[in-house]
Amino acid sequence: MNNLDQLADNKLTEYVGKAPIGDTIGLVIANVDQQILDNLHLDKKYHSLGILGARTGAGPHIMAADTAVKATNTEVVDIELPRDTKGGGGHGSLIIFGGDDVSDVRQAVSIALEDVKRTFGDVYSTDAGHLEFQYTARASQAVHKAFGAPLGKAYGLVCGTPAAIGVVMADVAVKTAAVEVLSVASPAHGTSVSNEAMVHITGDSGAVRQAVISAREVGKVLLGNLSGTEPKNEFPSYI
Amino acid sequence: MNNLDQLADNKLTEYVGKAPIGDTIGLVIANVDQQILDNLHLDKKYHSLGILGARTGAGPHIMAADTAVKATNTEVVDIELPRDTKGGGGHGSLIIFGGDDVSDVRQAVSIALEDVKRTFGDVYSTDAGHLEFQYTARASQAVHKAFGAPLGKAYGLVCGTPAAIGVVMADVAVKTAAVEVLSVASPAHGTSVSNEAMVHITGDSGAVRQAVISAREVGKVLLGNLSGTEPKNEFPSYI
Amino acid sequence: MNNLDQLADNKLTEYVGKAPIGDTIGLVIANVDQQILDNLHLDKKYHSLGILGARTGAGPHIMAADTAVKATNTEVVDIELPRDTKGGGGHGSLIIFGGDDVSDVRQAVSIALEDVKRTFGDVYSTDAGHLEFQYTARASQAVHKAFGAPLGKAYGLVCGTPAAIGVVMADVAVKTAAVEVLSVASPAHGTSVSNEAMVHITGDSGAVRQAVISAREVGKVLLGNLSGTEPKNEFPSYI
Repeated sequence: MNNLDQLADNKLTEYVGKAPIGDTIGLVIANVDQQILDNLHLDKKYHSLGILGARTGAGPHIMAADTAVKATNTEVVDIELPRDTKGGGGHGSLIIFGGDDVSDVRQAVSIALEDVKRTFGDVYSTDAGHLEFQYTARASQAVHKAFGAPLGKAYGLVCGTPAAIGVVMADVAVKTAAVEVLSVASPAHGTSVSNEAMVHITGDSGAVRQAVISAREVGKVLLGNLSGTEPKNEFPSYI
Repeated sequence: MNNLDQLADNKLTEYVGKAPIGDTIGLVIANVDQQILDNLHLDKKYHSLGILGARTGAGPHIMAADTAVKATNTEVVDIELPRDTKGGGGHGSLIIFGGDDVSDVRQAVSIALEDVKRTFGDVYSTDAGHLEFQYTARASQAVHKAFGAPLGKAYGLVCGTPAAIGVVMADVAVKTAAVEVLSVASPAHGTSVSNEAMVHITGDSGAVRQAVISAREVGKVLLGNLSGTEPKNEFPSYI
Repeated sequence: MNNLDQLADNKLTEYVGKAPIGDTIGLVIANVDQQILDNLHLDKKYHSLGILGARTGAGPHIMAADTAVKATNTEVVDIELPRDTKGGGGHGSLIIFGGDDVSDVRQAVSIALEDVKRTFGDVYSTDAGHLEFQYTARASQAVHKAFGAPLGKAYGLVCGTPAAIGVVMADVAVKTAAVEVLSVASPAHGTSVSNEAMVHITGDSGAVRQAVISAREVGKVLLGNLSGTEPKNEFPSYI
């Protein structure tokens, strides 16, 4: 039996699982050490922590965490966005759930791991860059914390790399439908120096969805023009 | 007709063109949405915006933007430097031109797209790192805004990755000729945590040019020593 | 004779050598130009500078610099950590030694270049991420400056990418033995937006070493689970 077989057999209680995209891993700490808790930067000091981490993907993981907090007795207490994507233009992620019970945070991590297959559905990539779109009719605590979306309201994200494409898509989105801009992020403002520009929008759910769809049409053409190849998603579009 | 053919046929008015290096794209917005304008971080709120973006290259694009503002009735109102280069050690760029008329900003973007073939002429790369050199006898508004170069005066840039090589080249440049140091940038100071060190210099145009050339000679040897291969430029040297 | 042969023959006095990992280069400046010195961000303005730079590796180079300052009449006057690793999740480094004599800083750089083969011994990588562990029974000035380790005391580093793995390893380390946490770093706190979480610990040397070893065991399993391949080091483990 080689080392990899041993790894497969090694059932560490901290390991929840992984998702088939973005080098995404889910972990739990049943009862975190007090010194570590004091040195982390959590909104609230829960002792049971669920941890979702990825090399590629921030928006998809925040949206998946939003699904998880809706379905469990947990909340997201930390969202950190490394500049990563393994040579791509965007972010990875570190998201920490807190709960009163380890079974709750484990469940939240499991739900999020499953949901990233959906939330990667509108990430379109070429060698030159990528586009990301997210939409929810009802933002919960993770999306509120990350992007300032009003709780219970519709939320949309339009994001592009290189950032120039994101700026044009942001303009297209907001011109398409009567939506409210929460913020615009760009390499020097509101990102971890990623090569992305993005707009966060809220408003009537139909308007938000239509704004995102219109921006997606334009973004795919522009990134296709730059790349000479058609931007592709790895999972089915959900918007 | 497949999707790529459709892309090629799709003449979005926002698309100006691309340059054959750095995943560089040029875009325009004829009349930007007011909400987007209010959420961008522009020096002056023009409604016609030209947008130059790249995955690889900041110095070359700023120099090309400088050429563009000299030749058009526009100014650069935003320069943001993502940490990018697709696994390399430097920056990408997002540069926004403002003008009173969309034809002006479109012209500025077109000129910049054409000029990056020149301004990439003294970018020399190996698998281990890269060197970049820029020079102008007369800095205009883009170079002034980005690097603090006095308007109308000579300006030179000496930059190296890994940053250690940039530090030595900076010293060589300034010892070679009587030039004035505008600033030194390094991973923790004045870069977007890139692995670069660089010196920005001004002074007599002959002295600035000679300082840059001397640093280039030393840098090519040092990066060659590290890499075991000769640093190569993809376009003809212009300095 | 081609250009590479010429490079090999070119004995620039600034070039000290390179290490066989991390694109690591060692350089010296015998008597730095005053304008450059005034524009660098050094703790103390020595005129003889030794410069250690790398595309991949911060911990290994800081530990090697610690070995070098112990053995020479120099001190580390600057440590800067670019977000690099050429598409990986961590840092490169720029470390500057100061000394009263160029022979001293040259010796420091030489010792550090040699020592990185040891200090890379507990860096374990897969395509999905990496783990890093460092340990010294007696921290000197470089480790004190970089990580706040008490001078002359034991110091340990436990670091993982994606950051989620680093959080769990930090918890394991501190639960294993009675050690004191100096700090926890993560993508948004104490790193250059890298995809790492790490804990810096001090205490009794045996306890610190045991804490690091226990975290290493868990980290190798978790990263193995994520990657489907066993994390590998390129040089022999030293802890």
